[in-house]
Parts: sequence; C-alpha cells; structure tokens
Amino acid sequence: MPVYKAPVDDTLFLLNDVFNIERYNNLPGFADASSDVIEAVLGEGAKLCEEVLQPINYSGDQEGCTRHPDGRVTTPKGFKEAYEAYAGGGWIGLAMDPEYGGQGLPYTLGAVMNEYASAANMAFAMYPGLTMGAIAALYVHGSDEIKRTYLPKMIDGTWSGTMNLTEPHCGTDLGLLKTKAVPNGDGSYAISGTKIFISAGEQDITGNIIHLVLARIEGAPAGVKGISLFVVPRNKLEADGSVGANNGVSCGSIEHKMGIHGNATCVMNYDGAQGWLVGDENRGLNAMFVMMNEARLGVAIQGLAQSEVAYQNAVAYAKERLQGRALTGAKEPAKPADPIIVHPDVRRTLMSIKAFNEAARAFVLWNALKSDIAHRSGDAAERQAADDQLGLMTPVLKGVLTDIGFDNAVKAQQMFGGHGYIAETGVEQFVRDARIAMIYEGANGVQAMDLVGRKLGRDGGRGIMAFFNEVGGFLKENAEDEALKPLLGPLQLSLGHLQQAAMWFMNNALAKPDNAGAGASDFMHLLGLVSLGYMWVKMAKAAQEKLKAGADERMSAKLVTARFFMERTLPETAAHLARITAGADTTMALSVEQF
Amino acid sequence: MPVYKAPVDDTLFLLNDVFNIERYNNLPGFADASSDVIEAVLGEGAKLCEEVLQPINYSGDQEGCTRHPDGRVTTPKGFKEAYEAYAGGGWIGLAMDPEYGGQGLPYTLGAVMNEYASAANMAFAMYPGLTMGAIAALYVHGSDEIKRTYLPKMIDGTWSGTMNLTEPHCGTDLGLLKTKAVPNGDGSYAISGTKIFISAGEQDITGNIIHLVLARIEGAPAGVKGISLFVVPRNKLEADGSVGANNGVSCGSIEHKMGIHGNATCVMNYDGAQGWLVGDENRGLNAMFVMMNEARLGVAIQGLAQSEVAYQNAVAYAKERLQGRALTGAKEPAKPADPIIVHPDVRRTLMSIKAFNEAARAFVLWNALKSDIAHRSGDAAERQAADDQLGLMTPVLKGVLTDIGFDNAVKAQQMFGGHGYIAETGVEQFVRDARIAMIYEGANGVQAMDLVGRKLGRDGGRGIMAFFNEVGGFLKENAEDEALKPLLGPLQLSLGHLQQAAMWFMNNALAKPDNAGAGASDFMHLLGLVSLGYMWVKMAKAAQEKLKAGADERMSAKLVTARFFMERTLPETAAHLARITAGADTTMALSVEQF
Repeated sequence: MPVYKAPVDDTLFLLNDVFNIERYNNLPGFADASSDVIEAVLGEGAKLCEEVLQPINYSGDQEGCTRHPDGRVTTPKGFKEAYEAYAGGGWIGLAMDPEYGGQGLPYTLGAVMNEYASAANMAFAMYPGLTMGAIAALYVHGSDEIKRTYLPKMIDGTWSGTMNLTEPHCGTDLGLLKTKAVPNGDGSYAISGTKIFISAGEQDITGNIIHLVLARIEGAPAGVKGISLFVVPRNKLEADGSVGANNGVSCGSIEHKMGIHGNATCVMNYDGAQGWLVGDENRGLNAMFVMMNEARLGVAIQGLAQSEVAYQNAVAYAKERLQGRALTGAKEPAKPADPIIVHPDVRRTLMSIKAFNEAARAFVLWNALKSDIAHRSGDAAERQAADDQLGLMTPVLKGVLTDIGFDNAVKAQQMFGGHGYIAETGVEQFVRDARIAMIYEGANGVQAMDLVGRKLGRDGGRGIMAFFNEVGGFLKENAEDEALKPLLGPLQLSLGHLQQAAMWFMNNALAKPDNAGAGASDFMHLLGLVSLGYMWVKMAKAAQEKLKAGADERMSAKLVTARFFMERTLPETAAHLARITAGADTTMALSVEQF
Repeated sequence: MPVYKAPVDDTLFLLNDVFNIERYNNLPGFADASSDVIEAVLGEGAKLCEEVLQPINYSGDQEGCTRHPDGRVTTPKGFKEAYEAYAGGGWIGLAMDPEYGGQGLPYTLGAVMNEYASAANMAFAMYPGLTMGAIAALYVHGSDEIKRTYLPKMIDGTWSGTMNLTEPHCGTDLGLLKTKAVPNGDGSYAISGTKIFISAGEQDITGNIIHLVLARIEGAPAGVKGISLFVVPRNKLEADGSVGANNGVSCGSIEHKMGIHGNATCVMNYDGAQGWLVGDENRGLNAMFVMMNEARLGVAIQGLAQSEVAYQNAVAYAKERLQGRALTGAKEPAKPADPIIVHPDVRRTLMSIKAFNEAARAFVLWNALKSDIAHRSGDAAERQAADDQLGLMTPVLKGVLTDIGFDNAVKAQQMFGGHGYIAETGVEQFVRDARIAMIYEGANGVQAMDLVGRKLGRDGGRGIMAFFNEVGGFLKENAEDEALKPLLGPLQLSLGHLQQAAMWFMNNALAKPDNAGAGASDFMHLLGLVSLGYMWVKMAKAAQEKLKAGADERMSAKLVTARFFMERTLPETAAHLARITAGADTTMALSVEQF
C-alpha cells in the first residue's frame, strides 16, 4: 500500500530560510502567522492528510463514485467524514475573511495545505478545493447579500461550491456557450442549459451545493462579451436559511474516467434553475477569472503533489527491492542482491524527480506569497509588481508543473518494474490522477498561448522584464560566491536562452503570429526551467548559510540536488530555444489532408 | 469510438522505395515475396486488423479477463473468434518454416503485421505474439521431437505459447529464480514453482497452452549459470497427440492492471508439472534469449503501434472539433469556430508524432530486414554484420520506441481536451496500454544498461563503428544534394554528439562504471534519435526520387516532415550529450538516507 509523509520540514525551510516569511508581517494575517504558529498549523495539516486523507485514496479510486437512477451521487467510503474533518479543522476557511468565519491566515499556508492534501488524496482534495475557488469568486464579485447568504456555510463545510463553464461543444472557446439566463423579474434569473465535466457537481457530502454557472442573458451580445456569472444553489433556500426543495438542478450522468475516480465528474442539467447574478452583467468571464487563476495555481500544485507522492513511494521501493549488484561491487553482500537504489539509472531517475519537486515547491510558494502581497499589501507599487509576476507565472506554473509532474509520476512508476503496472501497488493511480491536471483549468497548450499571446507582452513586457532583472541581479550579486559559482554559470546560460527566445518573438511573431503559436509551449517550458533554476540558486544560498552554522544532512543534500538540476535538467533550455527559433514554417506547411 | 486504418501505403513506400526489398530476393522466402504479393498480403492483414481486431479493442478493455474459481480464465467477447481468424489466415506461421506448416515468408512482413495488429488491438495481439515467440525459441533450441510435437499445432492456432521468467522476488535479476526441476528418470522433469506476470498464461482461446518455463535443475550452480529452459504443456498429451489431463499447471490469480485488460496476466503455479528440457542444461537463458530478442522487437513495435493509432484518432478529432479561430484569421468563417487543426500548437503536436511514427516504422523495418539477413543469408560476413546491428539496435528499438510511443499517446490524448480523459472516447486506453511496453521484456533502464554495458563495446565496438560509417557515408555521398542539405547539417551535428558521447564513455566509464550507468539512458535515446534522423534522410532521398517522377502529395509531405524532425526533435541530442558528460558524481553523491 502506498505511503505519504507531508514534507513539512522542506516547507518550513522554504518559508523561513528561503523566502523569509517574517519580513511580510506587516501584511494583514501575517502577524498571526509567526514561525511557531506556522509550524503548528502545518503539523496539524500534515497529520490530517497522512492519517485521514491518504488511507482512503486507493480505496476511493477502486470504489469510485456512483450515480443512482434518481440523480443522487454516492462518493467513496470515508469521503464524507474526511470532508467534515477537513472543514472542521478550519482548512476551508484558512485564508478567508474572518467576517465570514475564516481564519484570515496567509493564502500561502493554504497553498501548502493544498499540496499535502492533493498528494494524500487528489480526488478528495478537489471537493474542498473547488469550494474554496467558489468562495474566492463570490467574495470578490458577489453582493453583500450573496456573501452573507453563502460564504459562512461554505466556509464551515455545510455547503460546497463548484464552477460550471464547459458545455458539450465548448471548453476552451467559451464564446460558443449556450446556457441561457432569463430574468424572472424579481432580480433573479431562470438558468437553463447543460454543463459537462463538472467536478464535484453532485455528491453526498454536503447538504447543499452552490454552483457558479456561466450563462448568457437573453439578448446579450454573441461571443465572450455576452457571458454572465450566476450563483445557483442546487436546493432553494428557505427564508430561515434552511435548505428547501430542488432548484431545477440535476446531475444527468457521471463520467467513467481515466483517474480521479473518487471525484464525481458530472453532466449538470439546469432546467429553469433560479440563479443570481455575480458581478456585472456580461462580465462573467471577468468574475470567473478570480476563480480560474486560483484554480490554475491549485492545479499546478496537484502536479507537484502527484510528483511528490509518487517519488516518496518510488524511494521506499528502491530502498527495499533487491535486484542485481552495484556496478562498483556488492553494497549488501549478506543479502541475495543489492537494493535497486544502488543502480545509477535508478538514482538518476529519483534525483531528477527530487530536483524538480523541491524547486517546484519553492516556485509555488514564491508565487503564493505574491498572491498574498497582491491582495493584502498597502503599497500599490508592491501590489502591482506582485500582480505582474502572478499574471506571468500562473500559466507557467499550471503548464510546467503539471506536465513535469505527470512525467515524474510515470518515472516513479517505472522504478517498480512490472509491479508498478498492477493496481494494488497503488502507484499507477498517481499516473492516472496526475494526467487530468494537464487538461483541466485550460489545457496546457492554452496556458502556453495565454503566456505568449497575452502575458508576455502585457504592459510593455513589464512582468518578464522584472523577472529578467531579478534573476540577473541575483547572478550579479553572487558572482563572487565560490560555492554558488558552479550553479550560476548554467543558470546564466539558460537565462540567455530565455532572453533570446523572448527577443525572437518580438522580432518574428508580431508580423507572423503563427511563430508565437508554434513556439508557445517551448517558451512556457523554457521560462519554467529558468524559474526552477532560479529557485535552486536561492535555495542553495539559504542552504549554505545554514551549513555555515553547522553540519546538516538536509542542507548538504540541497547543494548536491541543486547541482544535479543544473547539470541534468537545465540543459533542456537549449533545445527549447532551437525549436522556438525554428519558427512555424514546417509546422504549418502541410495541408489538412496531408495529416 | 476510435478509428484505425493500417498505413499500408507508408509500409510499401518503405519496403519498395526506401529499403528496396527486391534486392534481397536471393534470400529464402524473399523470392516468393514479390512486390505484388507483399501488397496483397499486407492488404489482407490490414483488413483483418481493421475489421476484426480493432472493433473489439475498446470492448475488450472494458470487459477485461475473468478468472473463475476453478482457475479457468475467460477472455473478452470476440477474442477466441479473432484468434481463429488470425491463425486461420496463416498469420502465426507467416515467417515460420514450411516444414512445420509455416509460409516461410520474410520475418519483415511479420513485423509489419505485428504493427497493424498491435495498433488495432494490443491486448489481443499479445496472444499470437507470445505464441510466435515461443515457436521461435522451440524452433532454434528444441529437439526434433519437441518441434514435431508442438510447432505444427502452435502454428495452426490449435495451441498457444507463453514465456515464464519472472517470479515474485525476481524480474530483471533472473539469477535469483527458485523454480525447481527434478529429473523424473525418463528424460522429463518435474517442475515446481510460482511464476508471475505471465501474459496469456491462461485463456479460453486455444485447446492447450505450451509454456516455456525457466527453472533450476536440482543441484545446478547458483545464479544465471544454473538456469534451464523447459517446455511444459498445460495439459498432457496422449500418445495419439490429443490433449489429456491437466499437467499440474494452474493459474492462481490474474492481475488487476493499468491497461491491456484484454490480455490475462497470470500468476502460474507449477506443481510437479512434467516438462522437457529445451536446449542444453543450465543454458536456459541462452535459449530464452532467442525469444527475448524477438519479443523486444515486438514490444518496440507496440510502442510505434500505440503512437500510430493514437495519432490517427487525434488527427480525426483535430479536423472535426471546432474551437477558436486561426491566429491568421478565420479559416472556416461559415462555421461557429475553426477546427482545432488550424492552431499552431495542435499542429506542432501532431507533426511531432507524425515525424516520429514514420521514422520509427522505417527503423523497425530496417532492423527486421537485418533479422531476415542474419537468419537467412548464405554470406557469413553479411549475416555477421546484420547480427551486429540487431544486437546493438534491439535495446534502442525497445527503449526508445516505447518511451516515445507512450509520450506520443499522451500527446495525442491531450488534443482531445477533457474528452480525452473519458473512457468512452477510447484514447485514454492507448495511454494505459502503451505504458506496459516501457516495462515488460526488460524495463527501459535495463535496455539502456544492456546497450551501454554490453552491446556498445562488444567485439571492439564493431556494431557502433559500422553505424557511424554507414551514416557518415550517407552524409558524404549526398553532401552536394541541394535538396537534402537542410537535413544533412542537423544530422551531422547530432551524429557528432553521439560520437562524442561514445568517446566520453571510452575515456570515463571503464575506470568508473557508474559513469556508464548514469549516462546509459541518455545514450540510448541519443542513439535512437540519430537512428531516426538517419531514417529521415533515407526517406527524404527516396521521396525526392519519386517526386522527380511527378507531383505526389504524400512525398512532398515526407520532405516537410523530415525537416520538422531535424528542426524540432533532433536538437534533443545536445541535452543528452550534456547529461552524459556530466558524469555520475552528483547522481551518486547522496547517501541512501538523504532520499
């Protein structure tokens, strides 16, 4: 059976030593998050994930969700109790406004808990995860009445939330959506239409489900400029706030999927369901974007989380499975064979996952802190800079962490040989679960286009220029540090590749947009690799500081892993640059019939 | 529902125009395989795969295999009839000796049929595939009596064959195996032990199952030098050749796996089962290697096959699914959106799979022809050269085609967005099925070690030197060809990377074998990429010859795709070289506890 231990120590190293979270204690909520409090909070979160969520991960996958003929959906054994424990522990409201029952702690801590929960049980973590996304959208765009009506009960776990965007004929291209909203004359609307791929759309966990639904108000303009966002409870609310009759909302079927079996993916039918506008008419996409950006960071975290749990299990197996002898002579001569962790190809694999996971965790927290700053700082310039970075990095986080996270789950599975292909081992589930993260919340190709087509050039390229300056500044400031030198050279080279790629787009993509499209995915990965490399030099610097204070096995491992990343992962940037500068000509040359 | 069309035209282009199969008509069996005969044979094979095997692929995955309490195993609906059609069409015996009922045609045609069948229905194709492997081992190492007893009925489809290597505690390291063989005194042996992961170990398709089993004769030396191969029929044979009582062979359970659900993966129990030695005592691995090499090429073909069928389905979807508009303006303004094949990122993905598939198909056939030459040529030097290449390229074919084949199935699935994650779409099955090919018949890390540790330096590096000479010779001979020039430069560069890597191993791995182990997988992929690049220049040259004879859409597509491969796939070789020359130091530096 699979194992999972939340990497609390590694998180604390990042928060305390690499990002120095204490210096943000002027932000609302951060003063409450002293180093001791953070350690206690994360320790509690880790316990919940390890002891409650992880034990029902494999069983949840095997059991899956069941839709009954009357439209009710049963979730796997233990999910309802786990949700109660999750909400009861205050995790849904961790970073939410205390006015509505939240704890007001940094969003950054919520991102950490999301990693642990998604590693322990990704299908489960989606239930509170979607609820938190819905809360965020309602908090920013909902009227006071809406907020008072829904937020406290969503935060305390009585009700859950979902997002309803996709329709059978449209996912990426939301301009095509057809779900209708007809004014009822009392300020509410009658919503009718069919939504598909609605995660957690129906379940037996909470007493009501608060759906956020994109729909088109009768007479609205065509395309994306005629889409509005509505809040649509599955069950009507009585005047006293209690849950009443069904509101014309039903689950028509659930999907038979490759993975995340424990989460019900529903076809949702809205049949004149009563809904209320969230935000302005025809500005639904804008309101939904609040939810989508958080959701994208959440999905990025799922990529890291599956990579981490797969890694932990591969390491445990590699230490235990005896097969062959070390090339340099038997390491455990008393045993019939050596554990496979002695083999360089096994270590290469484990090191490459480890080098990604630790940098990806840093990359997530670096940006989660920016999210806190963007929302909470009193300094407009600081807010703006944080928001610039978040805008730029959100597609990179989502695209790169889920692509590599999936690859790593596959690599970890490979360590098990034939046993990795057997369901009972539990590791093939990580591969199947990780796969969805590359697809939902905007498929990774769409993330790449968002990055190159929108984010890169926004405000005169302010975001990417700030990144160049920050990384370039670090390289300059530390140029004389002998211990860091072997890391800085490779990073400098790859930063150069990134800058050349950005320059190439400037010169070649404006007149010929296909050049941007054909290079977008490579650019996303190139920026991702340089970002992860930057995380590694920052971590190495902090590790060295700590080593000066005394020997520390964990910190010396950081320096080795940093070097591994530079030697073996970062060289990919040259290939990305080569592909980008090849341009779109051969990519676009064939006629449709020649495929 | 998924589609599949066997790429007969592409195969014929390779056999006739690229490899000029007619020049081998001095080999036994090749004279019978005139161009017309080949076309007719492949046309029949294609029909069987498209009309019989493909329609039961998805249903076979959904239904899976069932083991009954009495140990019987039921295969999915239609598999028995399909096997009868397959054997009845003469496909099992296609390349087998006519003395035992085979058709004696080139093995190369069998490799083609294996591609089509594995693309149409991989789980099914394993039943005849394993039988063909067992036939090959018995044909080379079995006594005349064994051959007369088993081969005709295996070739005509009455009985099937399997291979039994793995035990619970040993897969890669067969030296650890424990299954015992005790002489019965009558020339036969009593076999006892448990084998796991036995594909097609039990089924309801054929009247008997002929197991090839590795076991240790009482008193044999420890390790791999004490392993012998036995033929063990599930049911005893009566004196008149009819099938008698069970021979102490039973299926203890079947595995619940990630994919290939239509193929029963069995735990096999041998309880004093009567078996006969195949080949010499204690030389079982040697005898099994005949089967394993063919099986490895067969698994390589599965990688290509899943990549091809996934590609075909992704193309069909990309032409049909409407979403967004082309960056250069609407391509189909009358429709609500353009088909997604207009988007550069979609094309990039499809082109990269296409560029792999066509080169991989050539790579397979180039080596399948070498297999025919190695077995059938009357010229000893020609046989030796062919065998050198096969030895060198078998691990590359197995490792690279299955790694990239799987990646391509994932990429193809990505084109479907959320729909690709749903079982009914049929494309996630390709991903799950393709996954096993990276694992069985020697996990790909083991292939890499076989290549670098054994094959590369064998006979003074004769195999790799011949490859360098052949590719170098092509580059030189065609240096003045203006049309090929854009392809030759990149290939020259990558060939240089390969040569530098080989040289680096010579200088750095002998004294420090971990340097070979840490770079093995990268070297395998580097050699694979250069091989695929070489296939592309050969194909481009042939395509150009044909274009001189008149316009041909297929041939002009070849030239574009060749260029795409050079621009976008081949640049990976630099990263592989960088990783290899980084050596093993950081890879091996951490203590086991630091993972």
